[in-house]
Amino acid sequence: MKDNNAQAEKKRISPYVIKRLPRYRRYLGELMKEGVERISSAKLSELMGYTASQIRQDLNNFGAFGQQGYGYKVDFLYEQIGNIMGLDKEYSIIVVGFGRLGQAMAGYIDQYEKQFRIVGIFDVPDKVSSIEFGKVYVSDMDSLKEFCRRNKVDMAVLTVPRSEAQHACDAVVDAGVKGIWNFTSVDLAIPEDVHCENVHMSDSLHELSYHLKDK
Amino acid sequence: MKDNNAQAEKKRISPYVIKRLPRYRRYLGELMKEGVERISSAKLSELMGYTASQIRQDLNNFGAFGQQGYGYKVDFLYEQIGNIMGLDKEYSIIVVGFGRLGQAMAGYIDQYEKQFRIVGIFDVPDKVSSIEFGKVYVSDMDSLKEFCRRNKVDMAVLTVPRSEAQHACDAVVDAGVKGIWNFTSVDLAIPEDVHCENVHMSDSLHELSYHLKDK
Repeated sequence: MKDNNAQAEKKRISPYVIKRLPRYRRYLGELMKEGVERISSAKLSELMGYTASQIRQDLNNFGAFGQQGYGYKVDFLYEQIGNIMGLDKEYSIIVVGFGRLGQAMAGYIDQYEKQFRIVGIFDVPDKVSSIEFGKVYVSDMDSLKEFCRRNKVDMAVLTVPRSEAQHACDAVVDAGVKGIWNFTSVDLAIPEDVHCENVHMSDSLHELSYHLKDK
Repeated sequence: MKDNNAQAEKKRISPYVIKRLPRYRRYLGELMKEGVERISSAKLSELMGYTASQIRQDLNNFGAFGQQGYGYKVDFLYEQIGNIMGLDKEYSIIVVGFGRLGQAMAGYIDQYEKQFRIVGIFDVPDKVSSIEFGKVYVSDMDSLKEFCRRNKVDMAVLTVPRSEAQHACDAVVDAGVKGIWNFTSVDLAIPEDVHCENVHMSDSLHELSYHLKDK
């Protein structure tokens, strides 16, 4: 039976709810740091700017975490959302493009994202020779496919220049990688079984300029 | 009369619409590159995944750009959305924290965001001495306030470590800067007249792990 519970559950949940989950988790993480043990949907609503009814509705997608008149248990909900997001597993990740942004993102993952382990870094040959990152050497793009064949690679961070984006994406997809974290600002053409998350830096910068234009 | 047209217009528009505008502009920019001159809301809907009615509703917030049975003029709409976002103006920007991420974002702004001009870069003294970025030298954090007093500074990119985030934010706010592009993943305490856009790298990475967890 292909259509197991996990897949059925996944299909029911709106992508908008999925987009909100990391934000719930961040807020719950902050509350844990402050020593808060329980929180009502009303109080969470105040903090996060969603309505209390929206919050109850969102979290009901994953079972009944809260109790009437008692609220949510912060650490339990934090963990449950983490599990739903797949953060109870480990992912191996390669960085493709090791310029400033690639180095910054590798540093970020290494420091803050313990579930994601950098197993390989790739760039064009003339950038490769002298750089290493921790225990990981930077390898030639040409060796990417062979590397992915020998090692389990779940995700690729794409931090190449725009002009190289689709080419690098094709190489990664061809090597069997199913997840792409795309920083190139290019809308990539990918097969249906590959998932791509786009980070568009400009969106938030332009939103900022909207708010400042009359100041 | 304080409540002028621009401000009144601003108040009416939902923040969700504002969040979608940069995405409209990106897609229109791509269409321009492909030489597309006009596009219907139905076709735009197909491309972007919003409903055609949502698109018409969103764009109606800013006046009637489209014509029945004729569609939207791509370059005109691109420019109008740019104007609405304040991208017909220039902004001067400082980078606070010049580690790998600060360097990456300075490089990004310099290369791709022509309306945003980097006028100053700040970091702690031991990082300052040897680095420069184009014609801009990296200065000591202690000189930030004086610098902002002498130069018009619209925005600050915050790329300091988490532990320094609120401190750097306070310094920037104290210096009179009204816009913050925050990469620190810390929810900053800011006064009401300052606008902050948060970039949470982890949100999209965790969304990616959600989609990969059963693969």
